[in-house]
Amino acid sequence: MSRPARKLPEPILDPREARRAIRAERITGHTAGLAPQHVQGNLCILPLEYAAEFAAFCQRNPKPCPLIGMSAPGDPRIPDLGEDLDIRTDLPRYRVFRDGECVDEPTSLTQVWRDDLVSFVLGCSFSFELPMVEAGIRLRHLDNGTNVAMYTTNIACTPAGRFHGPTVVSMRPLTPANVIRAVQVTSRYPNVHGAPLHLGFPEQIGIRDILRPDYGPVPEIRDGELPVFWACGVTPQEIVRRAKPSLCITHLPGSMLITDRLNRDLAPW
Amino acid sequence: MSRPARKLPEPILDPREARRAIRAERITGHTAGLAPQHVQGNLCILPLEYAAEFAAFCQRNPKPCPLIGMSAPGDPRIPDLGEDLDIRTDLPRYRVFRDGECVDEPTSLTQVWRDDLVSFVLGCSFSFELPMVEAGIRLRHLDNGTNVAMYTTNIACTPAGRFHGPTVVSMRPLTPANVIRAVQVTSRYPNVHGAPLHLGFPEQIGIRDILRPDYGPVPEIRDGELPVFWACGVTPQEIVRRAKPSLCITHLPGSMLITDRLNRDLAPW
Repeated sequence: MSRPARKLPEPILDPREARRAIRAERITGHTAGLAPQHVQGNLCILPLEYAAEFAAFCQRNPKPCPLIGMSAPGDPRIPDLGEDLDIRTDLPRYRVFRDGECVDEPTSLTQVWRDDLVSFVLGCSFSFELPMVEAGIRLRHLDNGTNVAMYTTNIACTPAGRFHGPTVVSMRPLTPANVIRAVQVTSRYPNVHGAPLHLGFPEQIGIRDILRPDYGPVPEIRDGELPVFWACGVTPQEIVRRAKPSLCITHLPGSMLITDRLNRDLAPW
Repeated sequence: MSRPARKLPEPILDPREARRAIRAERITGHTAGLAPQHVQGNLCILPLEYAAEFAAFCQRNPKPCPLIGMSAPGDPRIPDLGEDLDIRTDLPRYRVFRDGECVDEPTSLTQVWRDDLVSFVLGCSFSFELPMVEAGIRLRHLDNGTNVAMYTTNIACTPAGRFHGPTVVSMRPLTPANVIRAVQVTSRYPNVHGAPLHLGFPEQIGIRDILRPDYGPVPEIRDGELPVFWACGVTPQEIVRRAKPSLCITHLPGSMLITDRLNRDLAPW
């Protein structure tokens, strides 16, 4: 979920307009900065024979797997997230996995779509980073134009059928005052990872070396800062990869689904 | 604000009944455990010539000085906090200071009451420790039957006239999971100290040695715990002591004002 600079004449604010541009393949890159007030989601499409198990997995692990939308089998629409939304065409680029191996990165799913596919859309960290930034919290990876560091932990997800494995967390280094503010702000967003899972002692959650992340760049933690860990959307990707389903389709990292839902509506109070 | 065992036949749950027993001097000791669902307050009584400055001081420093009630000059009643409440008789024991020196610890103020006295009632940590305990957070000082450790910091209060000085904080050692939960729970109680002021790095707030508190006992901080600091009700006591007003009356530590307000009503959501 890096945020590389996009080269666009002007920012698109309306989510329907953004989806139309993506559908027409006028946008095929990252979605960071597009319709910034609106929720962007991670995509995971699975055949029906895996769908009930994966739905249960998300229900049992809401922090790493915050399900914000789910389709009927074979139905490419998810009207909750956008009246006109077509999951086969409305993301800039997809990844197609067969038996756990990535076999293609198409810009449309019209060639691979099947009547037994079920789409899952999961909340992503864009939605909870925005309120932190709006609350005055500087996030180092945004300042540096890089991605967050991510770590596989010793916190096991609650298994569901063929889906099981460890929780992956993202880490943001914060000053003590910002730790307190970040807990307050992100607690209001339980549907996009919510409050931190841990802070302060990486070894307590099985992270041996904070400077050797499992995903993302080496982080910079300054004197007087604490590492703060949130459940990460890479968790379900890893869990699904390990399960090696016959077919699985995801978004290309950074190329998310843009929905009509407003980020601010994700906060229950 | 230690919580020594009281020797009473049975706990008094009703705040009016508790105040009646105190007024009749059947209770002259600590108030911990009395009417436990109700707000207890710290008391500070000052002559009118100091009242506006102290009210401004509280308004400017709501975290250490959360004002929950204030009387009219000379009026011993504070109906907001209890219909029948008489501030001259309804606390178990008082401290009378003249020019900054404690000169008496009476059980009633009838002898010293004057028509120019203004009463200030400030929220206390009982009200925010209860929700923490109810949220499953073990507090070491409660487990050990001792007081919290308190420290004078380098965080200056916003001055108001003759009232100025540093913020005093209380410290509770917590595991990372409990740090996160404690920020959530105490953030809901802005009128009784609210969210922590700091965590993790005592030296950042001018505390040189965490094992040498300025008030209270030497704390026990275990491996894997973080020290978490909240603004403390000792702050206004210290600020007033430094200002050496001609007359000042407070509660004896631990012998608080019991009010009719419910602790749960202090949470705005």
